[in-house]
Amino acid sequence: MQTPWEYRYANRTKRMGSSVIRELLKLTEQPDIISFGGGLPAPEVFPLKEFRAACNYVLDNHGAQALQYSTTEGYRPLREMIAQRTARYAVSVTPENILITSGSQQALDFIGRVFINQGDHIVVESPTYVGALQAWNAYGAQYISVPSDENGMITDELEKALRIGPKFIYVLPNFQNPGGTTLSLERRQRLVELADQYGVPIVEDDPYGQLRFEGDHLPSVVSLDSKYRGDDGCYTGNVIYLSTFSKLLAPGIRLAWVIAPEQVIKKLVQSKQAADLNTAAFNQMVAYEVGKDGFLDEHVKLIRSIYKERRDVMIEMMEEMFPPSVHWTRPLGGMFLWGILPKEMDAAEVLNIAIERKVAFVPGESFHPNGGGKNTMRLNFSYSNPETIREGITRMGTVLKELVAKQPSIS
Amino acid sequence: MQTPWEYRYANRTKRMGSSVIRELLKLTEQPDIISFGGGLPAPEVFPLKEFRAACNYVLDNHGAQALQYSTTEGYRPLREMIAQRTARYAVSVTPENILITSGSQQALDFIGRVFINQGDHIVVESPTYVGALQAWNAYGAQYISVPSDENGMITDELEKALRIGPKFIYVLPNFQNPGGTTLSLERRQRLVELADQYGVPIVEDDPYGQLRFEGDHLPSVVSLDSKYRGDDGCYTGNVIYLSTFSKLLAPGIRLAWVIAPEQVIKKLVQSKQAADLNTAAFNQMVAYEVGKDGFLDEHVKLIRSIYKERRDVMIEMMEEMFPPSVHWTRPLGGMFLWGILPKEMDAAEVLNIAIERKVAFVPGESFHPNGGGKNTMRLNFSYSNPETIREGITRMGTVLKELVAKQPSIS
Repeated sequence: MQTPWEYRYANRTKRMGSSVIRELLKLTEQPDIISFGGGLPAPEVFPLKEFRAACNYVLDNHGAQALQYSTTEGYRPLREMIAQRTARYAVSVTPENILITSGSQQALDFIGRVFINQGDHIVVESPTYVGALQAWNAYGAQYISVPSDENGMITDELEKALRIGPKFIYVLPNFQNPGGTTLSLERRQRLVELADQYGVPIVEDDPYGQLRFEGDHLPSVVSLDSKYRGDDGCYTGNVIYLSTFSKLLAPGIRLAWVIAPEQVIKKLVQSKQAADLNTAAFNQMVAYEVGKDGFLDEHVKLIRSIYKERRDVMIEMMEEMFPPSVHWTRPLGGMFLWGILPKEMDAAEVLNIAIERKVAFVPGESFHPNGGGKNTMRLNFSYSNPETIREGITRMGTVLKELVAKQPSIS
Repeated sequence: MQTPWEYRYANRTKRMGSSVIRELLKLTEQPDIISFGGGLPAPEVFPLKEFRAACNYVLDNHGAQALQYSTTEGYRPLREMIAQRTARYAVSVTPENILITSGSQQALDFIGRVFINQGDHIVVESPTYVGALQAWNAYGAQYISVPSDENGMITDELEKALRIGPKFIYVLPNFQNPGGTTLSLERRQRLVELADQYGVPIVEDDPYGQLRFEGDHLPSVVSLDSKYRGDDGCYTGNVIYLSTFSKLLAPGIRLAWVIAPEQVIKKLVQSKQAADLNTAAFNQMVAYEVGKDGFLDEHVKLIRSIYKERRDVMIEMMEEMFPPSVHWTRPLGGMFLWGILPKEMDAAEVLNIAIERKVAFVPGESFHPNGGGKNTMRLNFSYSNPETIREGITRMGTVLKELVAKQPSIS
């Protein structure tokens, strides 16, 4: 039965779709399916004991503040803690450069709201994070895809894209979602140079940077953008830097942050006032209590060791079980790796059969805003334990061997 | 120092302003100012003990689920609980008619996102809730103001507004923010009739409906819209109904909900996927544990008795201290009352002097999207205790008496 609402949708709703991944996740929620589809942290690494103690401490000592409305910018001690951490691995900022958001997705939405006019071009890696596309599609963004290889965005191809006059460049330099790739130092430097030369700013999305299993931490893009540091030491750069507690602590508290020049933060704060007033004070105060005394530095070591083991098991099993015509990236950290099927194969068709065999992944096409990538797939290795990964990759291997054998052009 | 970002703001940012109220709240955060300006619940009514028990229970028994990503629609047991409560005082719905949002402000934002094209007209009461204006300004809404009196929107003036072809009608029927007025039953019926006749749907915002101090509960607008009930019992009406836990439990957990036909919920879910993926599972599970066994019904009695006392003290003091040319509404519930100064006076100027005398309120002009209301003001009575209210109203009375005495046209 129809109601007057159904004739009244705004034009922008035509550009809004359901998230392919979230819809897929529903399909794979059946308990007997092994899913490499989601982007979920391992629940084993959630610091339940510390959360419990922090909840009790906050309610006992600051209950009235924790349960009340709070400032849009975010809980100041938490912003100070983030500023101190950020100074260690990225860039020197003050709490005035930081806005707390309800997850990084909200930061992406606000960036769209503040910067994207309908028809604006955004430079993205190909493949890129589908959540950013979903956020910015609502604002009518168009995308210029720059191809990637195992060292991330191929910056030699970037200049051509910048000549089109994009609004900004979007990169995930560390253990990219979905590709699992890491932008090399040389390319980071080249990216910052070109961005400066063409006057095009950069959004650096870094949810996984702390989750490096091997090799040295590379300087973040924002830290290479040194020429835009103000005389007073305040950050006035042309990089907006995003990170999150979803991977360091837990996604269920919905806490992330944006680092940007103060003037940009003010615009983002206006967006947040209109969008949801403020992020839950309780959650911010609990995260601060959990994180404040160096806990994060210890805890991240546990996460790294668990995820490294899972990556190793997944790759070992893929080497053993997958047909030789299937290839994949070997991420140095993070939560995802990227599979490449023979180019005649369609990962969506593989998924249909895989689901029958009780294993799932995300076909790669949706990570390509301008098409392509039909023969690619994203596999998450953080969520499932090693035993489950072994069984799931075995099931996938069986499916892939059967399908590759059927391909007329592969022999 | 400027950065490339500052030349790149989207056109819509020109329509986005800072929230007058939130900026004002910052000014009045000095501890010696008595502020009737905010819209804060009394911290004395926050159920800290119950929250503490619920946090521990959730972390001990469902920790991995509570700290993980979760469904965009919201925690199903919480949606079931809301459906059951809603059936008692408003309308029969299923969890499929409910989306959990991060506060009602987010619901208002999503309604703007899904329904408002630039230039669309929205019918609002005059005065109306400024947060809705702020949410919808970003989407380029224009407003048709329908005047209100002590019985809420004057529905005799509504038909003229509906002939302009608005996208929807926005009403706060119970103890309105800012007016403190309640829409009479007769006008509720007339509103639903006219909305049906013109095919214009209604957004009913009901954060305070449960906080009635006296008189009988009036049927919600959504419950009067009976002709759009589907044959299967599912709600398919032309009212979108909003409510929240911010006033029943605590605003610091950021939990509210939208009730709408299932097709509309699906569009709102798409908005939420793009905007912030999901509302914190932890918060939803804690609210469910606090609320599930009838606690809300008992707790709301405490809130009512405390707020009633504060309203009574405020009005008693106003009668004693304010000059006779100042008038006000007498709300039957909620958190706000509305003051009307002699029409030559400007509440913003009164506020400047009031702040010097360490008392604050919100001038009414910003609640009028099409101008007017310069001589009006919103006073919150829920946040301050009776003693503070006495002192604050005494201070305001002194200021008002001085200013009224200076007005040449009043004698």
